[in-house]
Amino acid sequence: MAVDTSGARRSSFETAHGKVECPAFMPVGTRASVKACTPAQVAETGAEVVLANTYHLAFEGRRELVRRAGGLHRMMAWDKTILTDSGGFQVFSLPGKEVTKDGVWLPVLYDEEDGKKKKGERMFLSPEESMAIQRDLGADIVMAFDQCVEYPASRRDLELGVDRTTDWAAKCLGSKLDQHQFLFGIVQGGTENDLRTKSATEVTSMDFPGYAIGGVSVGEGLDLLKKIVAHTAPLLPEDAPRYLMGVGLPEDIVESVERGIDMFDCVIPTRYARFGTLFTRKGKIRISDKKYRKDKYPVDTACACYTCRNFSRMYLRHLHYAKEPLFETLATIHNLHFYQDLMRGIRESIEKGRFAEFKASVKTF
Amino acid sequence: MAVDTSGARRSSFETAHGKVECPAFMPVGTRASVKACTPAQVAETGAEVVLANTYHLAFEGRRELVRRAGGLHRMMAWDKTILTDSGGFQVFSLPGKEVTKDGVWLPVLYDEEDGKKKKGERMFLSPEESMAIQRDLGADIVMAFDQCVEYPASRRDLELGVDRTTDWAAKCLGSKLDQHQFLFGIVQGGTENDLRTKSATEVTSMDFPGYAIGGVSVGEGLDLLKKIVAHTAPLLPEDAPRYLMGVGLPEDIVESVERGIDMFDCVIPTRYARFGTLFTRKGKIRISDKKYRKDKYPVDTACACYTCRNFSRMYLRHLHYAKEPLFETLATIHNLHFYQDLMRGIRESIEKGRFAEFKASVKTF
Repeated sequence: MAVDTSGARRSSFETAHGKVECPAFMPVGTRASVKACTPAQVAETGAEVVLANTYHLAFEGRRELVRRAGGLHRMMAWDKTILTDSGGFQVFSLPGKEVTKDGVWLPVLYDEEDGKKKKGERMFLSPEESMAIQRDLGADIVMAFDQCVEYPASRRDLELGVDRTTDWAAKCLGSKLDQHQFLFGIVQGGTENDLRTKSATEVTSMDFPGYAIGGVSVGEGLDLLKKIVAHTAPLLPEDAPRYLMGVGLPEDIVESVERGIDMFDCVIPTRYARFGTLFTRKGKIRISDKKYRKDKYPVDTACACYTCRNFSRMYLRHLHYAKEPLFETLATIHNLHFYQDLMRGIRESIEKGRFAEFKASVKTF
Repeated sequence: MAVDTSGARRSSFETAHGKVECPAFMPVGTRASVKACTPAQVAETGAEVVLANTYHLAFEGRRELVRRAGGLHRMMAWDKTILTDSGGFQVFSLPGKEVTKDGVWLPVLYDEEDGKKKKGERMFLSPEESMAIQRDLGADIVMAFDQCVEYPASRRDLELGVDRTTDWAAKCLGSKLDQHQFLFGIVQGGTENDLRTKSATEVTSMDFPGYAIGGVSVGEGLDLLKKIVAHTAPLLPEDAPRYLMGVGLPEDIVESVERGIDMFDCVIPTRYARFGTLFTRKGKIRISDKKYRKDKYPVDTACACYTCRNFSRMYLRHLHYAKEPLFETLATIHNLHFYQDLMRGIRESIEKGRFAEFKASVKTF
């Protein structure tokens, strides 16, 4: 592992499904599909890990489906590394949840497979249940079931969240996983340094093979994010991967890499793409903008993705207005490639001891 | 060119963008995109021609767009053959049109690029205008502007349609196209043998490099289609490609190949795919059917497409229910590949003099 003078780390780790070069960005495939892309297209961008969501794959039919399919890798036809989140983020994001000391009642927001709405139905997610589901899903990296608290939160709620996260982490560690699965611990504590310290101390004492900083990307903004990461990352073991959950924009990523983070995931590149916002080295562009109406250039002239090698901005704008499904695919390929280019740039600059310079070249989006 | 004893023809022709092996099926890319597929994915199915629509690409902004992009090939990144229809089918399909001796007033059904609805606006499509637009689009094969009449139609309407189609064909032939563009004549006449004969005689006297049978696929059904093709195909020159417009299901295709047709186009494989109907050698399947809930097999075990090589029916069913955009892509790839397999089977069987045997093996969908 190379550590830049800035604190940026150039590392890698290996799972049963290959080597992961870090710092790494993991595209999100919530329901076992990175939206609008084939796994071949995702792999072509250079991604080495994709993420899937326990909550969205937990409903009766889907969990059984993945199990019968022989796990997520075979079902999705993704033969590289997969990480599954634990459902802990939904404890923050879903309305109408109910947290108890043993776990969380979550609303079932989606229709069952057979198309019958089951309104008002709830599911109970606990550390044990989350582990059992994630074992069935078969991801290489499995996240502990934690309590992600909203921002802003009272001191009391943050304390409760930290205590539950520690308690649940121990239960997760006691649950049976497959031999190839690595369980990562998660540190909570919101914006309070002493609670982050408490959480990190308790969770790292359990000796997980990797750690995540959770409870971020909940609306705290870049300044607080930087503060949280700067305080928490150094509390984590040097020799284990550090994953900042749900982050973020390119500027969030470089700031966090500088503070010692190795892994990221976020829906931003894929979601922005579907709504017509594309990343370029000169800033982001809205493809619907009139100025691209006659623009024969690719989205980003410095980009080597399939989209930029073959299509013009004006064609993409046409597809966007015509609501052609191909727009979502081409836009997603580009944004994912842009993110992987960012990570490649980060890794190379750390290797050359020039991360600060590279960081300064990254636009704010 | 090989002609099977049945009347089936094994031929090929060449355009500025490559050789086209016939009988050929041409996927439809109405607005300069085969829905939900990249051109690379379409090419991988074996398609050698795609079709785009003059009407849908004629609105102010779009026509200028394609022209500026350097034509459809460059804009769509499709370097094989492209065929554009003339807008004649919209004379049949669009509500509120008004046909005059010089051309057709068509409603502009879609929003302009800038998003402003222009309700009630009309565009005038004439032989001259259709040729001018198709010249800008730059397809290798350009269709004459014809009057496609609905089914059933009065004898008087069919007669008028034939006369206009002949008159307009001459005007198309007198219009300037690019050197690489082939203009195909279209035979009309509905279900009336004598009118088909009249139309074929008049249109073939103008010496086009290829001919289409139009005015089919308008609800007449397979029995009448067979009758029309059996009567009309022999009236066309032996040495020019014969294109049956808008057809069809696999059984329609093999019946028409047997009667001497070389080229087909239809939205069926792509449209069926998006709505969850998939073609297999054993018949079509509705992926939403409960029986595929736990089905680990590919859509068609005999299919070598990307979808069948990598994904199970139960995963596709999951994507369909979850409304994942990937479903449309994977389903379309499969159906297009199925159609190309059908055409490959047809071509090989004609070469071996065993077309009748092959035809008997094709399911009715």
